[in-house]
Amino acid sequence: MKIYKNPPREEWDALCKRPLMNQTRLMSSVKDIIRMVMLKGDKALIDYAKKYDKADLKNILCTSEEIKDSEKEVSVVLKDNIRLAIANIKKFHEAQMPKKKFIKPMPGVRCWREARAIEKVGIYIPGGTAPLFSTVLMLAVPAVIAGCKEIVLCSPPREDGTLHPAIIWAAKEAGVTHICKAGGAQAIAAMTYGTDSVPAVYKILGPGNQYVTAAKLVIASTENVAIDMPAGPSEVLVIADKYGDIEFIAADLLSQAEHGVDSQAILVTDDEDMPEKVRSEVIEQLDTLKRSEIAEHSLIDSKIIYFDDQRTCMEFSNHYAPEHLILNTQNAIDMIGDVVNAGSVFVGDMSPESVGDYASGTNHTLPTAGYAKSYSGVSLDSYFKMVTFQALSQKGLKNIGPAVEHMARTEGLDAHRQAVSRRLSKIENQ
Amino acid sequence: MKIYKNPPREEWDALCKRPLMNQTRLMSSVKDIIRMVMLKGDKALIDYAKKYDKADLKNILCTSEEIKDSEKEVSVVLKDNIRLAIANIKKFHEAQMPKKKFIKPMPGVRCWREARAIEKVGIYIPGGTAPLFSTVLMLAVPAVIAGCKEIVLCSPPREDGTLHPAIIWAAKEAGVTHICKAGGAQAIAAMTYGTDSVPAVYKILGPGNQYVTAAKLVIASTENVAIDMPAGPSEVLVIADKYGDIEFIAADLLSQAEHGVDSQAILVTDDEDMPEKVRSEVIEQLDTLKRSEIAEHSLIDSKIIYFDDQRTCMEFSNHYAPEHLILNTQNAIDMIGDVVNAGSVFVGDMSPESVGDYASGTNHTLPTAGYAKSYSGVSLDSYFKMVTFQALSQKGLKNIGPAVEHMARTEGLDAHRQAVSRRLSKIENQ
Repeated sequence: MKIYKNPPREEWDALCKRPLMNQTRLMSSVKDIIRMVMLKGDKALIDYAKKYDKADLKNILCTSEEIKDSEKEVSVVLKDNIRLAIANIKKFHEAQMPKKKFIKPMPGVRCWREARAIEKVGIYIPGGTAPLFSTVLMLAVPAVIAGCKEIVLCSPPREDGTLHPAIIWAAKEAGVTHICKAGGAQAIAAMTYGTDSVPAVYKILGPGNQYVTAAKLVIASTENVAIDMPAGPSEVLVIADKYGDIEFIAADLLSQAEHGVDSQAILVTDDEDMPEKVRSEVIEQLDTLKRSEIAEHSLIDSKIIYFDDQRTCMEFSNHYAPEHLILNTQNAIDMIGDVVNAGSVFVGDMSPESVGDYASGTNHTLPTAGYAKSYSGVSLDSYFKMVTFQALSQKGLKNIGPAVEHMARTEGLDAHRQAVSRRLSKIENQ
Repeated sequence: MKIYKNPPREEWDALCKRPLMNQTRLMSSVKDIIRMVMLKGDKALIDYAKKYDKADLKNILCTSEEIKDSEKEVSVVLKDNIRLAIANIKKFHEAQMPKKKFIKPMPGVRCWREARAIEKVGIYIPGGTAPLFSTVLMLAVPAVIAGCKEIVLCSPPREDGTLHPAIIWAAKEAGVTHICKAGGAQAIAAMTYGTDSVPAVYKILGPGNQYVTAAKLVIASTENVAIDMPAGPSEVLVIADKYGDIEFIAADLLSQAEHGVDSQAILVTDDEDMPEKVRSEVIEQLDTLKRSEIAEHSLIDSKIIYFDDQRTCMEFSNHYAPEHLILNTQNAIDMIGDVVNAGSVFVGDMSPESVGDYASGTNHTLPTAGYAKSYSGVSLDSYFKMVTFQALSQKGLKNIGPAVEHMARTEGLDAHRQAVSRRLSKIENQ
């Protein structure tokens, strides 16, 4: 971890740079995969499972037997914990359901919005070393609350052609309607065009590797399918003052660093002694970790930055726009108002990021790579559209009509004007 | 307008097809334009203004003199109408400001969301035959309410190197901070990378031609800039029953058709006599329009569809997912609950689309081309991000910690577990 002292503002852009995702190189192979799935459907998925996942697939859609088996294979403790997480995610996301409000801009004119669930959504769960059942919960529970009718999950099969039972059990428990064995760009293509096994959806959510992200970007710009956001490697920024516990701060940085070799962990502090102390503590804790190799690798690009005052620490954080922001300061509560760009914020020294990753109920699917400047994380809103409505009475049209007629005329849109004028003259002649 | 009777469901996909936007052909020239603006900044904007807009630009950013002049050039009546529209748009969008709600999933654990304005937004206003000041209002007013600090407007200059005074006056009145003369893909690139005259922004909103849309899609998938949605040609679907006024229905279809040659106007009805009656009325009204040539052209691809029952009419509408939906039926209010996919809905025979286009306060920047299945129109939400927060007490961490530890262990994320365990053991040893 490199230490910086009061870096001048001209250097902030460089300090905030994320490891580059070389998408252009992937693009052509991703486009090939997408085209093959569009043309060959299930057949292509089976071929790619063999090629990329080394799996011989008998079936793509999980059978009721596989779902039943997961019931036996998941421990009682894990089930209880998953149920707790589901309950908390439900509480947090249910509170996000918008209430209908009628606005009357003028007498006789009534306008309002209503939420409508996206009927079919797809969620992607990455494979890899660990079964990410927590991501299943984060993506499926709000879909059920929103009222999505079809919730299609895709996750890459293991070499034996199965999904991890924790994935299957969490999916079933959360309310996923179709659990499919497909990974990578081919899974994104399958959910876009539909195959015999995988239903087509209107929106695809969830993290993934560079192939998955590239495929999401391709379909979002060429097909009638929405995506949640472009996802990059995970990241945390910790702001700490002299009251911060060095052990906790190091543990929080490491819990980010273990995600992947391209994860970013940044500490920003106004305590001059902290940088060195945290660096030593990180090295010490590193040895105790199972994934120490990954963490060590990602720490190479991680940074500790000292500024003379806390205000500048927060300004730097807003410039960086971290996915996760931990406020480990005595006045953490007072700093909340100054947070502008961040995905999810952990306030105070008893709020480690892992709590939000698993169980407090907030969503862990968050904007990375600086996208927190313009994107929100996944929330209930991600699963519905707001449709606007308006209803006018004759009186309402009389009140607002003349302004509409004049503005339409000024914009040169005569038929727009007539749609009002013809109604008004019929009212007059009644 | 072609008439269809009870088309079977297998044919619905074909009937719902929109005129194809051939983006791949545009892409290479759009990418060239984007690169040139990135490299040459203002110089490129001036060159493109000459090439595409036939304008010699002295300045790209409107001067305070140009802004002052617009004050004189806009009529008092238009000013009053614009102020009325602003007031209504404000009322409708202010009501969308989310309230902070604290959720306590467990004792000692507090989670909530707060809205944060996107600091810098860009809005694109198309040029062409008519000055679209209404779009200025729709895109700028919510930005001001949300609290965006920089609101950058780009619109193509006229041949004399100016913007229409109605555009400038509306922009100033609504609260735009930078009014820039730039159109097409070059404007999108300028707002992405920034030039000496045009500030870089974090999100770009607004409709545009195929070049603008292609440029938005390119930057959304390659740069750290968000966009509102992929915009296509405007469209309306009218559902009418036997009580519908033929004159109004025809006028509503035409007010869509006059937008552009690729606009779509669809009538769906369960009244057998209506198709022929509306078709004749449309032809009759066509002659009275200033933009009759455009309307006539776009009517070629427009359709009148009869179904035996109203339920199927609504199912077809949801399949089509129209940008604008007009419910011109006696039981319009009762049909609201069945609307699933639509951008904005006009309820009853006194609610023509033009009211929402200009003045009722609802936003007219809406999803087209079937995107209403997954996208909302522009709203206050488009201008802020929701940031999640959580604060735990020691008691809170004791309550939720063990579940987090177990789930982190199951996912193989040891450092995630330690971030909790180290805190819990320190609490124990206090």
